[in-house]
Amino acid sequence: MAELKLRFQSHHLPLAQTFTIAYSSRTHTPISFVQLQWGNHVGYGEAAMPPYLGESAQTAESFYSSLDFSWVTDPSDLEKVLGYVQSHRLGNPSAKAAIDIALHDLHAKRLGIPVHQLFGLNPANAPQTSYTIGIQPLEEVHTLLPNTDPFGLIKVKLGGGHDRQMIDLIRSYTDKPISVDVNQGWTEKEKALEEIYWLKERGIVYVEQPMSKESTMDMEWLSQHSPLPTIADESVQRLTDLFELKNYFHGVNIKLMKCTGIREGYLMAKIAKSLGLKVMIGCMTESSCGIAAATQLAPLADWVDLDGHFLLANDPFEGLSFYEGVVQLSQLNGLGVFPKHLIWDDQ
Amino acid sequence: MAELKLRFQSHHLPLAQTFTIAYSSRTHTPISFVQLQWGNHVGYGEAAMPPYLGESAQTAESFYSSLDFSWVTDPSDLEKVLGYVQSHRLGNPSAKAAIDIALHDLHAKRLGIPVHQLFGLNPANAPQTSYTIGIQPLEEVHTLLPNTDPFGLIKVKLGGGHDRQMIDLIRSYTDKPISVDVNQGWTEKEKALEEIYWLKERGIVYVEQPMSKESTMDMEWLSQHSPLPTIADESVQRLTDLFELKNYFHGVNIKLMKCTGIREGYLMAKIAKSLGLKVMIGCMTESSCGIAAATQLAPLADWVDLDGHFLLANDPFEGLSFYEGVVQLSQLNGLGVFPKHLIWDDQ
Repeated sequence: MAELKLRFQSHHLPLAQTFTIAYSSRTHTPISFVQLQWGNHVGYGEAAMPPYLGESAQTAESFYSSLDFSWVTDPSDLEKVLGYVQSHRLGNPSAKAAIDIALHDLHAKRLGIPVHQLFGLNPANAPQTSYTIGIQPLEEVHTLLPNTDPFGLIKVKLGGGHDRQMIDLIRSYTDKPISVDVNQGWTEKEKALEEIYWLKERGIVYVEQPMSKESTMDMEWLSQHSPLPTIADESVQRLTDLFELKNYFHGVNIKLMKCTGIREGYLMAKIAKSLGLKVMIGCMTESSCGIAAATQLAPLADWVDLDGHFLLANDPFEGLSFYEGVVQLSQLNGLGVFPKHLIWDDQ
Repeated sequence: MAELKLRFQSHHLPLAQTFTIAYSSRTHTPISFVQLQWGNHVGYGEAAMPPYLGESAQTAESFYSSLDFSWVTDPSDLEKVLGYVQSHRLGNPSAKAAIDIALHDLHAKRLGIPVHQLFGLNPANAPQTSYTIGIQPLEEVHTLLPNTDPFGLIKVKLGGGHDRQMIDLIRSYTDKPISVDVNQGWTEKEKALEEIYWLKERGIVYVEQPMSKESTMDMEWLSQHSPLPTIADESVQRLTDLFELKNYFHGVNIKLMKCTGIREGYLMAKIAKSLGLKVMIGCMTESSCGIAAATQLAPLADWVDLDGHFLLANDPFEGLSFYEGVVQLSQLNGLGVFPKHLIWDDQ
């Protein structure tokens, strides 16, 4: 009798360059990879854990180690296996996402199909991804600008004290659409609105998380008055957060690492649409494994921000490509990616 | 180049016996069947249209005839094809369900898998189905009672003027769990609550649609006071109806013919759970084709009421079986059913 065997390993992956947003700066990022094996098939998953979100290699490994899959007789029963993972412990969204992603990879490989076929989605309908410029000195941004050439949309992290100069600098280089991510950085709603009007004049397409997730009253006012769509990121974790969201934002940034994986990410995208919300699919700094998982759902998105793997110095997975501004899946079954740098014990 | 070819046919199928609920009685039921062909594969779907819901063979055929699938280059892009079907015309939920069901059957057959594998569901987790006793004279109910023997749950239609005698009669025959469906038949909330207390004493497990769908204030009061779960049927059609529902009911009866098919039915079941609602999966009087479609989602249900095909004199589809109170899917790909009585032109 086959058993569902879980292996995992943790890494502190170096970034191609230091990445700074409104409340954090780092040169490495903690990631754990999991492998689920059933008979001759293996599925891969990833947990990306930016330190400010409260998870770590330690919490993820504790979560994985506490899981008992000995009762699993049918790994294609995603509903039951993931139901167990969800209710096993509270929290741990990234660690849960790693299991969810690996189980989808395994399930689709056993069926002999790509994951997106489970959801009836055609990757050819995926929007272009944005390329993210973090908060950094203007002279560094200047040297970075050619990196944006292959991309159709540029995302700029604001809140570094020289926001308008950043936008002006990028605008002097290109007239491509730009989105901005304030990461809760603005504190006064009138000032925020003034800034959004200024941004609209310069061809910005949406504003992500302009104010603190606690400022729901201010966000309600701001979204009512904003001439640009407002997109919730830190204000939303899970599916159930969506039901009230349309009072405060025009859209939502769905990230698998926040919402525990592909299964809930799919539900969130579909429910957001049914609530009249715009759908953005984003990521953390993560490898091609996590990006491939999110890319399965990209056809559901209005905007895609799946550039996390470009920020790593040495991506441990391969299989994704990049063409005409769009992250492209391979034709392989499952997620369409495979590990190039990882060694798994005892196989 | 293959094309997505739609064929359809309408029937007025005879029932095994006259079926009566609180506001309707009939000996036949209008059903249309559709077939979607792509290359060598065909998928089947069904629209069941009880007359009181406003659809008919005429409206369904008008809907089918107006669809233009000539633009479809990838029938596995369910999101896009069904998005087109949804937005093509308002209303027509059963006709839309027929297309949705046929497309899922086709998609899964082309992938070489059963439909439930798309959703990661294991049919072994499906609850027993209830068997429905309509409103009829007590002496007829008496002769019908042996029909309930293979079933683990009996559903009784109330509102016929002799509700308590119906329950007493069935209770004198069996101590199996019973559910009741009032079909909006009760008009006074205090009287309804009294009746529910009486029913609880007699082992009734839930009460479906006790009051009019317009009586939201009364339903809110009744659900707050009811010692049995209240389940919405006529009060809910589509996904978006769920968001407010938890104020008025404890659960929802999801029917593919109301909610336009498998895709939205899946979302409704998952969202209902996330809202804390009980999930019932029900049906109209329909053939094994529609029942097989709903059965794909049965593992998501707390209660299942999928006995519509038992009510037909001559089911045009086969492939389902019935064992230990549970509707059983075949091992075939797609829906797991195939037509036994239907002739399709020009193939």
